[in-house]
Amino acid sequence: MLVALAGGVGAAKLLAGVTAVVDPAEVTTVVNTGDDLVLHGLMISPDIDSVTYALAGTDNTETGWGIAGETWTVAESLRALGGSTWFQLGDRDLATHLYRTQRLAEGASLSRVTAELAVARGVRTTLLPMSDQPVRTRVTLADPPLGESPEVAFQDYFVRLHHEVPVRALRFDGADEARPAPGVLEAIGAADLVVCCPSNPVVSIGPILAVPGIRTALEARRDRVVAVSPIVAGAAIRGPADRLLRELGHEASALGVARLYAPWAATFVIDEADGGLVPAIEALGVRCVVAPTLMTDRARAAALAKVVLDAP
Amino acid sequence: MLVALAGGVGAAKLLAGVTAVVDPAEVTTVVNTGDDLVLHGLMISPDIDSVTYALAGTDNTETGWGIAGETWTVAESLRALGGSTWFQLGDRDLATHLYRTQRLAEGASLSRVTAELAVARGVRTTLLPMSDQPVRTRVTLADPPLGESPEVAFQDYFVRLHHEVPVRALRFDGADEARPAPGVLEAIGAADLVVCCPSNPVVSIGPILAVPGIRTALEARRDRVVAVSPIVAGAAIRGPADRLLRELGHEASALGVARLYAPWAATFVIDEADGGLVPAIEALGVRCVVAPTLMTDRARAAALAKVVLDAP
Repeated sequence: MLVALAGGVGAAKLLAGVTAVVDPAEVTTVVNTGDDLVLHGLMISPDIDSVTYALAGTDNTETGWGIAGETWTVAESLRALGGSTWFQLGDRDLATHLYRTQRLAEGASLSRVTAELAVARGVRTTLLPMSDQPVRTRVTLADPPLGESPEVAFQDYFVRLHHEVPVRALRFDGADEARPAPGVLEAIGAADLVVCCPSNPVVSIGPILAVPGIRTALEARRDRVVAVSPIVAGAAIRGPADRLLRELGHEASALGVARLYAPWAATFVIDEADGGLVPAIEALGVRCVVAPTLMTDRARAAALAKVVLDAP
Repeated sequence: MLVALAGGVGAAKLLAGVTAVVDPAEVTTVVNTGDDLVLHGLMISPDIDSVTYALAGTDNTETGWGIAGETWTVAESLRALGGSTWFQLGDRDLATHLYRTQRLAEGASLSRVTAELAVARGVRTTLLPMSDQPVRTRVTLADPPLGESPEVAFQDYFVRLHHEVPVRALRFDGADEARPAPGVLEAIGAADLVVCCPSNPVVSIGPILAVPGIRTALEARRDRVVAVSPIVAGAAIRGPADRLLRELGHEASALGVARLYAPWAATFVIDEADGGLVPAIEALGVRCVVAPTLMTDRARAAALAKVVLDAP
């Protein structure tokens, strides 16, 4: 049994690789929900959806988000009405949000709805939200643009403000009262291998660790935890992870990430470009595996998955 | 200035006729919101939308509801996910609901949002919901099918159960605490003519009259109120008005409707098929105008509008 900790796009790519080389039924993925938002009344779980679409093979590999072959009839109509369209919602993607929102309103848990949507799309991997309770990543802006609140919701920072503004702090609203979703701690406890996907350490993996009990469960299985660095040669493959690390006082390098993960991950997979960091990382008590980590196609993602499976 | 009281399809047809013969800017329409529902987290106002689409000239005249040339990408995707699809939502129609839901969540009133959507679609007529507070028509079933609650929401009766089940009673939940939307009483008070459109007397006009103050305002202007019968030769043109009238203890005829409207409407336009009812209706103190009332195309709707304008 394999457990993966996942954010959005980077995790989705690695998971598509993992499920190409191991039976998807043997994989449980715990997904960040700190990015979730309510927009137009709809409950949107961007990371759950990215992972689901990737595992279903319906992800849009060009944009890195959304569904392949998506259409935009609703969004174009909404734009014509003068509606808010900063968060792009494709027609097929909207069906996911309508389904989720209706089922949650009927009293189903987010775990339950996530499982239903995964099954409906033919995903055989178990997908779990990190928690059934709402945890919301809130971003304190270092220098709020005119008209912005000093603290904004994650997607306001990430999408609406194009993650171009400096950040002073993060907090995970609701985390203290949240519980791990049913099955999360059990899966970590029983896993042969726990893979921390190459997701943003502070805004994708950070919220998962903030749910009481998950970090302790990982610490107890430290020997079986393998993390893949999302930072290559000092830069994020995608998104603002490098800048966020620096702004929040960390080093924007594989070493900086290793420092954050060392308490609960015994093995760290870093890119060939970062071979020079091996001694510093191993000095933290973290074993290093050096490999090509850029998942530019599914074959490379599967190759990286094999490295990860053989890593511990 | 002309004020119209409107439900859905029948009203939408007459209003398209009215605005073909008078300046739309001189018309204020007060629309039933008792049919409103929340589905998939979206705030849906079916009567407001039917009237808006008709006045914008974008209504689907084949189905009688929705938008002409509509597409169904989201609905098909939702069906594939196993989602609830008994209430059909087209792609362009969905944009309306996304817009409304977002704006209401931002704190805008239903009046404000209704006006914004009307302006965005090029409607020059003033559209007012009967109230900014929620009023919800609840239907007590005479003989609930297996698994149904004895009392259901209006759209559950109307759409999901295809208005095929007998009804014992109606109530307008929230009406006691509701206030007429800003401008409703002022418009009725200042109108040269108030037109009660050929809408369902009990479930379309009934909720409007249930908002405290509106019935009294109409009674004060009784001489200027002209109602158009939605019942022709004992049958509703469309929908369950005839059955509902009978089930709720009224006569399913133009005379039955005239009895309900006589306290606040001095003039009643009935179809040529019902000429024989004139003496009985006039005995109620209601002046009768007999005319062709079937609005099978826009020219006939405009002709009926002219009859109504000349009626008082």
